[in-house]
Amino acid sequence: MQNIHISDLKDYVREEVTLRGWLFNKRSSGKIRFVILRDGTGYVQCVYFKPNVPEDAFEAADRLGQESSIEVTGIVKAEPRAPGGYELDARDLKVIHETHDYPITPKEHGIEFLLDHRHLWLRSKKQVAIMKVRHRIVKAIRDFFDNKGFTLLDTPILTPNAVEGTSTLFETEYFDLGKAYLTQSGQLYAEAGALALGKVYTFGPTFRAEKSKTRRHLTEFWMVEPEVAFADLNDDMDLAEEFLEYVVQTVLKDREEELKILERDISKLAQVKRPLPRISYDEAVEILKKNGVDFQWGEDFGGADETVISNQFEKPVMVHRYPAEVKAFYMKRDPENPKLALAVDVLAPEGYGEIIGGSEREDDLNVLLKRIEEHKLPQEAFEWYLDLRRYGSVPHAGFGLGLERTVSWICGLDHLREAIPFPRMIYRNTP
Amino acid sequence: MQNIHISDLKDYVREEVTLRGWLFNKRSSGKIRFVILRDGTGYVQCVYFKPNVPEDAFEAADRLGQESSIEVTGIVKAEPRAPGGYELDARDLKVIHETHDYPITPKEHGIEFLLDHRHLWLRSKKQVAIMKVRHRIVKAIRDFFDNKGFTLLDTPILTPNAVEGTSTLFETEYFDLGKAYLTQSGQLYAEAGALALGKVYTFGPTFRAEKSKTRRHLTEFWMVEPEVAFADLNDDMDLAEEFLEYVVQTVLKDREEELKILERDISKLAQVKRPLPRISYDEAVEILKKNGVDFQWGEDFGGADETVISNQFEKPVMVHRYPAEVKAFYMKRDPENPKLALAVDVLAPEGYGEIIGGSEREDDLNVLLKRIEEHKLPQEAFEWYLDLRRYGSVPHAGFGLGLERTVSWICGLDHLREAIPFPRMIYRNTP
Repeated sequence: MQNIHISDLKDYVREEVTLRGWLFNKRSSGKIRFVILRDGTGYVQCVYFKPNVPEDAFEAADRLGQESSIEVTGIVKAEPRAPGGYELDARDLKVIHETHDYPITPKEHGIEFLLDHRHLWLRSKKQVAIMKVRHRIVKAIRDFFDNKGFTLLDTPILTPNAVEGTSTLFETEYFDLGKAYLTQSGQLYAEAGALALGKVYTFGPTFRAEKSKTRRHLTEFWMVEPEVAFADLNDDMDLAEEFLEYVVQTVLKDREEELKILERDISKLAQVKRPLPRISYDEAVEILKKNGVDFQWGEDFGGADETVISNQFEKPVMVHRYPAEVKAFYMKRDPENPKLALAVDVLAPEGYGEIIGGSEREDDLNVLLKRIEEHKLPQEAFEWYLDLRRYGSVPHAGFGLGLERTVSWICGLDHLREAIPFPRMIYRNTP
Repeated sequence: MQNIHISDLKDYVREEVTLRGWLFNKRSSGKIRFVILRDGTGYVQCVYFKPNVPEDAFEAADRLGQESSIEVTGIVKAEPRAPGGYELDARDLKVIHETHDYPITPKEHGIEFLLDHRHLWLRSKKQVAIMKVRHRIVKAIRDFFDNKGFTLLDTPILTPNAVEGTSTLFETEYFDLGKAYLTQSGQLYAEAGALALGKVYTFGPTFRAEKSKTRRHLTEFWMVEPEVAFADLNDDMDLAEEFLEYVVQTVLKDREEELKILERDISKLAQVKRPLPRISYDEAVEILKKNGVDFQWGEDFGGADETVISNQFEKPVMVHRYPAEVKAFYMKRDPENPKLALAVDVLAPEGYGEIIGGSEREDDLNVLLKRIEEHKLPQEAFEWYLDLRRYGSVPHAGFGLGLERTVSWICGLDHLREAIPFPRMIYRNTP
């Protein structure tokens, strides 16, 4: 008798094995009880035929409620009709913990109820599939940068300055040093890293205390931010499209089963291959106007605008060269038109909107000093950042990709709240 | 002329290439200027022989200060005496940004000065080596769990309850929901994940607002925490020793050059192979007494005690079954002696002390309720956690490994502050 996982069944056909897990579902038919077991690696139907099993095992298969933890023993059978291709000709059942009245039943529940029970909701088939896709996305992201010679640089969460106002920052008392703030981005620190290590990426939680109740906002979300020395905006776009292709194609290949569970139509994802379309902000504005959107040159795009623009394309679209006014102070201006910032946003198709924002960074000390003044930012807080332009400044560029938006897009979710194990939103920080 | 990195030189012997990076060091000898270039992938000596190069290039090699950013062109030569095995017979030099008076010179600097300039200090040879070892450790940690079928479960940073008092917690206002706290551990959430996915790990920043000024404390540090359903204390120790062997041996193999730069004596690290010694708390107390330490059974070990115990062993030592009184409420008691918790700490040798803390978790609802009462904890805050014992409870166990302590141990550092890019300590949260 061997303790194995459901994902190992293929190696044990016609052998007797023991599996441990949870009763996911069951049904009965005459002298047969069908128990669907889940163990985190998969699902398998265990067939209890009354003459073949001890009386108490059969009775338990009858009695146990959903999510009871059990140990089942039986003989592995190839069964092409079964999900996963195998089932268990059961011989015994041991109860580890008998459960009744599990709160989440196969019937429909309201979203608030499910979020209140997130610690249990995570056991549902769809949520398990999302978490496995999320994990594969994270691994693809890290593998991509690791394989290209980037060095991971974990940037700090607690940061000393509220450089762009405190309205969207979480703050905390930091001993005798006054207030500290939860980071909104590791980019400025990643720039220091790029000048030390050439190519770096930071990948960690970031925070926005924004009072946004949309389906596209979380107060706590993960972001990956590569930063590359000696790179310009074109290099940045080349990197972004190669990166997106790698992540999407890897997940499609490795998480086919989970995407099927999520009923994801993958036809559009399959098209995420280089080259991705690249249009200027000006061209994007033209698209909006042609589609009857009332839009003024100089504004930033809202979610609805992004949908109109991205609907023109089968693949994610890269929109570059935005009006500098709507972009951050550290972005380099376009030498051919100083009203424009050398910025790029990548908009996902199917209404998922912005998933990447990036730019070439201003690398000239005096220009950056002027920008800081124009933006009325406290120069002192940026002295260390200015040092990067005082000592061995080089052209450099990078971008940030929001993990939960990417998970949401690849999984085809309606709302970011299912893209992270325990979502934090303006009206929820439990469980 | 091809733009390549220093790490690629081996593929371009006798070819003309262009490298971009920073002037790390230089010296002169008659008609020759030696420029050491760094680019994040390595270091290479570029030899400027006056008759071979344009006048302005030779003059620049003479004039430029440390950390000037430059582009060098030359012919790659195999040179067994050179660090890395190659040097550049230089033909040209272009200045990207001329730098003078770089604050960090080859002379000695005080630690506060270096920490104030952490954004530049990261460019130093030793710091680059530490960051590359840290990255390889992170990758080894993730690869280990990924390859064993664990699912990554990113647990929340913002948590709603100060369940064990607020004295060591950073707190922040969370909209209209009152206070939220920065997580000290993802374990309780990882337990929910283990019951959904079988085997999970969480790996992210954690926070302690402890007023500890020791060389072994940071206020912000990264922790990896695996959690396994159907595992007991022995399984937990088996996992921890296999994990440590994998991480240490992988880093020794892949980061030999960096460990040499750090002058790390790797003879003890080479011995980190299974099995690791396992002793009980009782046996550890005996060791202390034999070594003349005044120690009462029932106390927790301090840093000095850990050093005395770990000095008895060549490898990390696993100390198990601690007095329950000094351990957390969620730890399962030893059925053979209910005064003991089924806990394990792993102590690193060479004075590095505790790097892992783990345990089997209490899985019985009523016992856990009693513990919560004994510890005077607010039951309401734990209702979701108690649900894990109400619905499909199973034996489970896990541990946490502190990343910076591990980096510090493997690199042979004196203080955790060099083990993370931007350290946060009680008296410092800048830059």
